[in-house]
Amino acid sequence: MATTAKKAKKSAEAMIDEPEALEAVDSCQNDIDALNEQASEEILKVEQKYNEKRKPLYQKRNEYIKRIPTFWMTAIMNHPQISSILEQEEEDCLQYLEKLEVEEFEDIKSGYRILFHFEENPFFENLVLTKEFKLGSNGESPSSTSTAIKWKPDHDLTKVLPKKMDSNRRKRGLENRTFFDWFTDNNDPINDDIAELIKDDLWPNPLQYYLVPDIEVEPEDDDDGDGGDEEFGEEGDEEEVDEVEDEEEKTS
Amino acid sequence: MATTAKKAKKSAEAMIDEPEALEAVDSCQNDIDALNEQASEEILKVEQKYNEKRKPLYQKRNEYIKRIPTFWMTAIMNHPQISSILEQEEEDCLQYLEKLEVEEFEDIKSGYRILFHFEENPFFENLVLTKEFKLGSNGESPSSTSTAIKWKPDHDLTKVLPKKMDSNRRKRGLENRTFFDWFTDNNDPINDDIAELIKDDLWPNPLQYYLVPDIEVEPEDDDDGDGGDEEFGEEGDEEEVDEVEDEEEKTS
Repeated sequence: MATTAKKAKKSAEAMIDEPEALEAVDSCQNDIDALNEQASEEILKVEQKYNEKRKPLYQKRNEYIKRIPTFWMTAIMNHPQISSILEQEEEDCLQYLEKLEVEEFEDIKSGYRILFHFEENPFFENLVLTKEFKLGSNGESPSSTSTAIKWKPDHDLTKVLPKKMDSNRRKRGLENRTFFDWFTDNNDPINDDIAELIKDDLWPNPLQYYLVPDIEVEPEDDDDGDGGDEEFGEEGDEEEVDEVEDEEEKTS
Repeated sequence: MATTAKKAKKSAEAMIDEPEALEAVDSCQNDIDALNEQASEEILKVEQKYNEKRKPLYQKRNEYIKRIPTFWMTAIMNHPQISSILEQEEEDCLQYLEKLEVEEFEDIKSGYRILFHFEENPFFENLVLTKEFKLGSNGESPSSTSTAIKWKPDHDLTKVLPKKMDSNRRKRGLENRTFFDWFTDNNDPINDDIAELIKDDLWPNPLQYYLVPDIEVEPEDDDDGDGGDEEFGEEGDEEEVDEVEDEEEKTS
């Protein structure tokens, strides 16, 4: 009986028929979709704003990092995944890496580039090696490009290394490609795991890897992404910032 | 020789020593981390704002949906994954499902609930069945709870169905659990795929599933999440919105 009452109420409510109700649902749905698109755009703007805010901090960080010899080489060598593509001769070469930078394109979603700034070195003429990723928005296919390396005579590590690699790399748990193999390979830009690790893990916090002692560590110890903090004082950070800013004014 | 010049320049620059530089890097890193946290909070606020904006549209949509007999049952039965837990007797029961709602908790990250509003029906006394998920922020473990169903005599589908299930479910490609198995099971809340499909796929756009004809479709056809649009006019949507709003004023 309650059901009958309900049905009666229903038909009074239903001044529009079913096809019209369907059109109305479709129209609501379009409004919801439009809101979702607005939300995505707004979130992107927040991300862009914070990318801008982070930039001066990253620059300042890079200035201090320059004063720490072989900071980037050490951080890379201590990184559990990135280190697995590093051959001994490449470690020698990365000693000259004085600055690493990751720049996202302004709209974030269309791509990014990784810049390796080198001091003058025995291996190649270039002072900057760049690997750039276009993520393929606007219907383009994703692609990556890397600076052509001008190797110095007899120092082309992509030619020198393959001969000796097979011997003991696997024993040491290393991948069967080298750092410069990775750098020069642009065949599969959407699955470039090393580039993503540099962009999303090393670059946001290289210090944690720099501080991990250069010994074998259990992978579990690294997973919290916080490995080195215990070894490096966290106390009084705000005061440190002030001191550091003063120092910077003096030195710059 | 350039290297020597560079070294000289370097030591002039290096008015702070290496440990101090390390502290400065750490301090920059803390500032970067703080910015990242701010960014996350701001993005969450945008999401909250749009959740609020979507609410009235979802409500309006639900009002129109009520005028379409068995809308939710049809959408659920046409959903490629959710339908795989639907037993015949449950389809009969879901005919009485007049409203489905997904409510995210206000802070979004801590949880959500799915509400099934039923008309009076032969199966159970409840008019609302709720399944609620707490995602376990603040160190709590994730958990889910569901309304205790007051089954009417001889209509407890969790007891009636298991006896006949094994026979032909697998032949029809169905899962070995039923809709009410899913509803009442709170053992593994973080891997509740059905709840997530309801929240992230069915609820944001049920119309696309309602419109897919109730026949076997190739899974590939469903994957674009857009299957039914061809069958339902997209043209003149903005005008439709206006019309629909007028209608609503008349009817409410």
